[in-house]
Amino acid sequence: MALSTPPVRGHARGAILDAADALFYRDGIRSTSIDAVADEAGVTKRTLYHHFESKDDLVAAYLERRDEPTRVAFAAQAAAAADGPAARILAVFDVLARFFATSDCRGCAFLNAASECASDSRVRRTAIAHKDATEAWFREQLAAAGSREPEAYAAMLMLVLDGALARSLLYPGGRQVRAAREAATIIVREAGVAIPRVA
Amino acid sequence: MALSTPPVRGHARGAILDAADALFYRDGIRSTSIDAVADEAGVTKRTLYHHFESKDDLVAAYLERRDEPTRVAFAAQAAAAADGPAARILAVFDVLARFFATSDCRGCAFLNAASECASDSRVRRTAIAHKDATEAWFREQLAAAGSREPEAYAAMLMLVLDGALARSLLYPGGRQVRAAREAATIIVREAGVAIPRVA
Repeated sequence: MALSTPPVRGHARGAILDAADALFYRDGIRSTSIDAVADEAGVTKRTLYHHFESKDDLVAAYLERRDEPTRVAFAAQAAAAADGPAARILAVFDVLARFFATSDCRGCAFLNAASECASDSRVRRTAIAHKDATEAWFREQLAAAGSREPEAYAAMLMLVLDGALARSLLYPGGRQVRAAREAATIIVREAGVAIPRVA
Repeated sequence: MALSTPPVRGHARGAILDAADALFYRDGIRSTSIDAVADEAGVTKRTLYHHFESKDDLVAAYLERRDEPTRVAFAAQAAAAADGPAARILAVFDVLARFFATSDCRGCAFLNAASECASDSRVRRTAIAHKDATEAWFREQLAAAGSREPEAYAAMLMLVLDGALARSLLYPGGRQVRAAREAATIIVREAGVAIPRVA
């Protein structure tokens, strides 16, 4: 028993998080019940509550688990698509275009959660940490590209990125992301960074 | 009865909409029950359902009622604060700063509703109409200011505006709105519009 329990537990926890991730993102947090998550994960509610004290706890775990992989995937895809920091910044918007084109895209999990659970300070904190880390990445790329005031321009790039993410819930992604890429180009150029031509 | 019913009905309808407006905006749509709205309005659930067939119906009415007054108030305040179309565009961000500084600010009712009720096509349509009308206002100001490609630059201004609105749920508004104003200034200048000095 002592030997078999940990892996089973581990498996249940992962299955619950996978189910929560799929349902919270697709249907929203408030409209997804704990019962629906347990069902989807193939566990009892009792097992779910063994792993997560409350729905708030599960929501926070859902967001925390999305934070790093989302940022790493974006940064890696941008790096693969572009040479040098300035091109990498703009490539983020190409990655975004591909993301918007996926049929199950529902915009940004963190902005959506913040909008649904505004009074939940843990949700807010997790979303802020995600956005701060994304902004830090922009700042680093800007600084590496020789930008003046990388902090100020990174803040502007975040507005454009989050504007595109928020608006993707309303409009098909194509036009938004082209406008976002153009706005980002203007901002990067204004920061004193030369944008290399695509070879 | 026939004579007294209409005004009473009108009063109930207005009270229900006022209650829905306050609660949907403050607490979110999904976490506000029809019972809570009826309670707040001081009407029975039966009366509420007499005026609104369903919660979806009430949500749509809530958004439709916010559309024009929100836009008119922003445009009027921006016009009062600034002379000329270019200054008016930037003054929108000063109006936004005051809005963010109000204690009951919960960002944009339309973006929040879209994020909460993504699968509701009527909510989406109402939010799109609101955003389209706002974008048209930017486009008109840009055109009046002699902008090149007012359509393209209005789309970029919307990204910055909606980025600031979405991010206001995470961050205190001050920094967001300063970055948004600066980004808008860069975009307007790039559009070939001279920005008048503040007298």
